[in-house]
Amino acid sequence: DLQPEVFDRLLRSGAPDVAKVAGQVARRRPRFVLLAGRGTSDHAAVYAKYLVEVRLGLPAGLVSPSTMTVYGARPDLRDVLFCAVSQSGGSPDLVDSLAAARSAGALTLAVTNNPSSPLAGQAELHVDVRAGTERAVAATKTYTAELLALYLLVEGIRGGDPAGSAAALPRLAADALDRDETVARIAARYRFADRLVTTARGYSYPTAREAALKLMETSYLSAQAFSGADLLHGPMAMVDQVMPVVAIVSGGAGGAAMAPVVWRLRERGADLVVVGGSASSVEADVVLPPVDEVLAPLLEILPLQRLAWHVAVGRGVDPDHPRGLTKITETW
Amino acid sequence: DLQPEVFDRLLRSGAPDVAKVAGQVARRRPRFVLLAGRGTSDHAAVYAKYLVEVRLGLPAGLVSPSTMTVYGARPDLRDVLFCAVSQSGGSPDLVDSLAAARSAGALTLAVTNNPSSPLAGQAELHVDVRAGTERAVAATKTYTAELLALYLLVEGIRGGDPAGSAAALPRLAADALDRDETVARIAARYRFADRLVTTARGYSYPTAREAALKLMETSYLSAQAFSGADLLHGPMAMVDQVMPVVAIVSGGAGGAAMAPVVWRLRERGADLVVVGGSASSVEADVVLPPVDEVLAPLLEILPLQRLAWHVAVGRGVDPDHPRGLTKITETW
Repeated sequence: DLQPEVFDRLLRSGAPDVAKVAGQVARRRPRFVLLAGRGTSDHAAVYAKYLVEVRLGLPAGLVSPSTMTVYGARPDLRDVLFCAVSQSGGSPDLVDSLAAARSAGALTLAVTNNPSSPLAGQAELHVDVRAGTERAVAATKTYTAELLALYLLVEGIRGGDPAGSAAALPRLAADALDRDETVARIAARYRFADRLVTTARGYSYPTAREAALKLMETSYLSAQAFSGADLLHGPMAMVDQVMPVVAIVSGGAGGAAMAPVVWRLRERGADLVVVGGSASSVEADVVLPPVDEVLAPLLEILPLQRLAWHVAVGRGVDPDHPRGLTKITETW
Repeated sequence: DLQPEVFDRLLRSGAPDVAKVAGQVARRRPRFVLLAGRGTSDHAAVYAKYLVEVRLGLPAGLVSPSTMTVYGARPDLRDVLFCAVSQSGGSPDLVDSLAAARSAGALTLAVTNNPSSPLAGQAELHVDVRAGTERAVAATKTYTAELLALYLLVEGIRGGDPAGSAAALPRLAADALDRDETVARIAARYRFADRLVTTARGYSYPTAREAALKLMETSYLSAQAFSGADLLHGPMAMVDQVMPVVAIVSGGAGGAAMAPVVWRLRERGADLVVVGGSASSVEADVVLPPVDEVLAPLLEILPLQRLAWHVAVGRGVDPDHPRGLTKITETW
């Protein structure tokens, strides 16, 4: 399955189930939302945090699993929705955190690609992202499926018609994947780079995080993601003419807030590549099809996953078998 | 003022004021805590998040200021303590976020080094970290003063005697600073490094973040911080024999959870330096005086700030005037 098909399946056959779960969450009226994930799924959780804060108007936080699993914290979690995101649903520290959260009074929800996983079993509610069997360690289609499932969930809690507003995604994703020549040309320039910075703001910030992780995992680049605002607070000092920077600049308010960051990077002579929407405030090197900013992260990551793939292959690395990694990482 | 004196001043003349603020917070019985900061102060906020979750037993989250300032989110913040941390108290997006949080029903608290700053003025409550005039862009003493102020605050909300339990800090800090020969020797080895990884878990995780930021700001190294758990989920692939890693391994449960990470790094042949407590589970290259794990971050950062200083000076950079930075960064 490719990503357009995964989007299509989740929208057609998965959306009613997600809507049911969303309804159950809405009836419980949570007042705070805690999100938990590791690696790629952590970035999906960051996307969900923006959705929860902006679209649901609820305060939200990302869980540090160690507070419960290492320090034995048992916070008072009544009125809290605790949502854990995991491809495999098998990471022991997430399973333990979710179990602890449930016994502390939270409404627990697992978002996984495996309905029979321990995480799904421990949670009161489960959303299946239906990404199909994930063969790549890079988990590219699981990431985009997690984003769509979380979008359907949060917008469903709001009481909208998210499957309707996302209906064009399969077609737009196919369109976004159709930039491989441009992406391959950009990847060639990074053949000998050993470090790189990615940056974005708002909804697109998790895109910067996930792109950096893929470049680290598959190409062994020291890739660092910064929110555009944080970049100006210190890390800007290390950006120079030989430091490649990839900025993600969507067409909405978050993208507009990136304009001064891009201006500052150009002023410093940074080697800059912009991935952006056709309506973005700065000229983009990789131009994505127009879409509501809230959904932009589901498209923006596609050329960046391809970028990591091309950089890896260009370096003679098999992106499906990076050194030192397995698909399920067991942390406690 | 050096850090031992700053600790001493805050413990002697600042603690009663912090205790008063802590009492006011306790009487309002917040159920959820949101923390906000940028750069160095963000790392102090991460430390406070662990304290709030573990010691107060309250769920907590780090604010993404852009949700309120860029997207205009107005979440329901009744029963929420909104705590903003800032050296200058002048960052416009923090001031705007705090004002928005206050009008959304949150109890607002500013932790700054400037009682007459806009942030302190906007907040219902204020804690003065009393670090004295900060001359260094690196803001080394403000960071440790923020940590101590947040420790006094959170433990005060719990109703303990934090100034008593922290009484030894000035002496321990002087002791921790007395490792400069060892630190200078380690710094010399990084003369030509262009990237570096820092890692820790639990209370010491913000130490890894802050050490990485100092190395980026003053030495232009691509320094990346990972929680020990996250490091195993992907970034481990980029660690090789020429990638320096600095692990912070305290003497408590967080340090114990780092042991498998250190073992894995050694197995991969990483160039590893361990900064740790005398009771830590692995042998340390820089050994710090014994202290409760909760207070360890106030000491661990001292040799790491010195490390950044030595690396910068070794490269001919003036650590007090890094390129591309000013002390107050204005982001919106």
